[in-house]
Amino acid sequence: MHTHLLVASLTILFSCLPAGAAPLLTGTSEGMRYEVDKVVEGLDIPWGMTFLGDTELLFTEKNGRISILDTTSGKVKILRTSITVFDRGQGGLLDVAGEPGYKTGDWLYFTYSRPQGNKAATTLARARLSGDQLIDWSDLLVTRPAAGADHHFGSRIAFDGRGHLFFSIGDRGERENGQDLASHAGSILRLNLDGSVPDDNPFIAGGGLTEIWSYGHRNPQGLVYDLAHERLWSNEHGPRGGDEINLIQRGGNYGWPTVSHGMEYWGPVAVGEATRKEGMIDPLKVYIPSIAPGSLLLYDGAAFPRWRGNLFSGALKLRHLNRVVLDDAGTPVQEERLLGDLNERIRALAESPEGWIYCSTDSGGMYCIRPALPSIERLTR
Amino acid sequence: MHTHLLVASLTILFSCLPAGAAPLLTGTSEGMRYEVDKVVEGLDIPWGMTFLGDTELLFTEKNGRISILDTTSGKVKILRTSITVFDRGQGGLLDVAGEPGYKTGDWLYFTYSRPQGNKAATTLARARLSGDQLIDWSDLLVTRPAAGADHHFGSRIAFDGRGHLFFSIGDRGERENGQDLASHAGSILRLNLDGSVPDDNPFIAGGGLTEIWSYGHRNPQGLVYDLAHERLWSNEHGPRGGDEINLIQRGGNYGWPTVSHGMEYWGPVAVGEATRKEGMIDPLKVYIPSIAPGSLLLYDGAAFPRWRGNLFSGALKLRHLNRVVLDDAGTPVQEERLLGDLNERIRALAESPEGWIYCSTDSGGMYCIRPALPSIERLTR
Repeated sequence: MHTHLLVASLTILFSCLPAGAAPLLTGTSEGMRYEVDKVVEGLDIPWGMTFLGDTELLFTEKNGRISILDTTSGKVKILRTSITVFDRGQGGLLDVAGEPGYKTGDWLYFTYSRPQGNKAATTLARARLSGDQLIDWSDLLVTRPAAGADHHFGSRIAFDGRGHLFFSIGDRGERENGQDLASHAGSILRLNLDGSVPDDNPFIAGGGLTEIWSYGHRNPQGLVYDLAHERLWSNEHGPRGGDEINLIQRGGNYGWPTVSHGMEYWGPVAVGEATRKEGMIDPLKVYIPSIAPGSLLLYDGAAFPRWRGNLFSGALKLRHLNRVVLDDAGTPVQEERLLGDLNERIRALAESPEGWIYCSTDSGGMYCIRPALPSIERLTR
Repeated sequence: MHTHLLVASLTILFSCLPAGAAPLLTGTSEGMRYEVDKVVEGLDIPWGMTFLGDTELLFTEKNGRISILDTTSGKVKILRTSITVFDRGQGGLLDVAGEPGYKTGDWLYFTYSRPQGNKAATTLARARLSGDQLIDWSDLLVTRPAAGADHHFGSRIAFDGRGHLFFSIGDRGERENGQDLASHAGSILRLNLDGSVPDDNPFIAGGGLTEIWSYGHRNPQGLVYDLAHERLWSNEHGPRGGDEINLIQRGGNYGWPTVSHGMEYWGPVAVGEATRKEGMIDPLKVYIPSIAPGSLLLYDGAAFPRWRGNLFSGALKLRHLNRVVLDDAGTPVQEERLLGDLNERIRALAESPEGWIYCSTDSGGMYCIRPALPSIERLTR
């Protein structure tokens, strides 16, 4: 009898091993069911991700490794590189991005924390892919000043499709950098694709570093250019409370640390003079408490049509995937928190050609979010 | 102890009930894993299918019903119509198609077997969708002659993106119709979108019915226009053996019943004079034995990038999904038979905006083929 029950148990156990496994997590958003599954684990912190083609997802790890996931086979190919990164605290190898319409052999752009003696500086570089190797690596801009702090490096990259790129950099741990136009820290920068400075940048005629496009930022770790509406979105970490989503304007001052919606870490004291001030641009959305956004994606895929035009960001502290709906004018009007059940610090996001969302986590994993099929509809003739 | 084992059994049992179910069937093609699931059952024979938008799959049933499947919710909405079809044998409501770039309110085109006394004629009609109703239904061409036979109606619809549509019609059970240019039967026809005859049709100056584009066909039940290469593909049922894939040329004679690769049903006797003859166009692919193709799809999706440019057809007799790879010149070079384990007569095919393939079956079901995720890749830091 014991044996029979044991056999029964094993039978049940093995009959449960399906032809394809059931998804790890399912949910519904805007009436669309989705499934979440893990695709990679055992990584360092995968920080930046970008699709190179239909099935090639290039990603960085904070420790300096650069790899390609074949999303069809699930296999990861580690590329040969010879870069050295300041892999401490929030520092390391950060974002990677190719221009819209990237083809093999085109430039790939990276941001990383470049060691400068005992200090480090957020740096923009580019390189090209040749087989399983990154060649022609060159630094396009080593931002100034280098700092000893191991936090607030930024940094994300975005392209406007007209020959320019933007990249973000945090205040490098010195909040005064936010309002200092003689420092790159606490700014979003704009360059030509070869690293030169566009002659229509806002401070080209004096008054600040010529690379600066906007300033008064604390630690912008999400940056995305909406090609259809020709507008640049960023999100950033507030101090304690006061994470922001901003629509970035040329030459704009976003207020840090003069104005903020956040509190000091050490006590119930607001940071700055107020939450707003004339001449400083208000965020379009504020998160209190902080979610700690690690990325920003403007969804545009076919797989989840009712998510189109929504802003997604990975949330590190309040572990979830944050979805923000914009109205026609671009004003955030609705927020949803997805994937909380994973209990993961969600870092980078990438949209696949078919519109699935890949996200990485600080525990070294990578997940895929894709549409679920509804249950069978049974009709009669 | 018994109780403990029983509890263990039940624990295993219930822990196996997943958040989302495992797929019905999985497989691999060109290194891409796919999953197959049933989405609808209990229909009559779903004969034609076309996506109207991101999540709306319009489909016909042979019995005359027209419905829309919401692929997100899984719900089917039956449209109000007032058409009468000759629902006997192979006859009934057949194909439905909208022009590429279809928007709500545009014309939808249908083919059906129109009752004519005791006979029936393959007929092209159009109508528009207004809420849950089809309005402004009108017949554009009632093909001639009507026939009493309940087989070989064709019929599929395709658009060239330049203001013309093609539709196919079988020999209506009289094989001599294939070579008879005074009969629409056994032909592929070409019309303007309003049903009028284009003035560059091949037989406009005499010698045949002006609607005919190509002739010598037995029962073409697959038709697809490749917009990128500007070429029209068709497949058709041979008699016993000799199903064909043809590249359709203006004014071309495809030989039925003068030439054929098939045998008579009643014995080991070849149909026609030979397998080829001067002045008659050879098929680019012949199936022996017959698979009985029920549809034709040129895949162009993002979900299965290595299937792009392949021709798919549902196979009714040799129950499977047939995939044919073309080389750069358009010559079939490879064939694969998928989904045989379903053991279903696969009828209509439709590609969703994200590149999933929906297929219907003569048992009244509808399935979805979508990419599977690979198993988790485990790395070390």
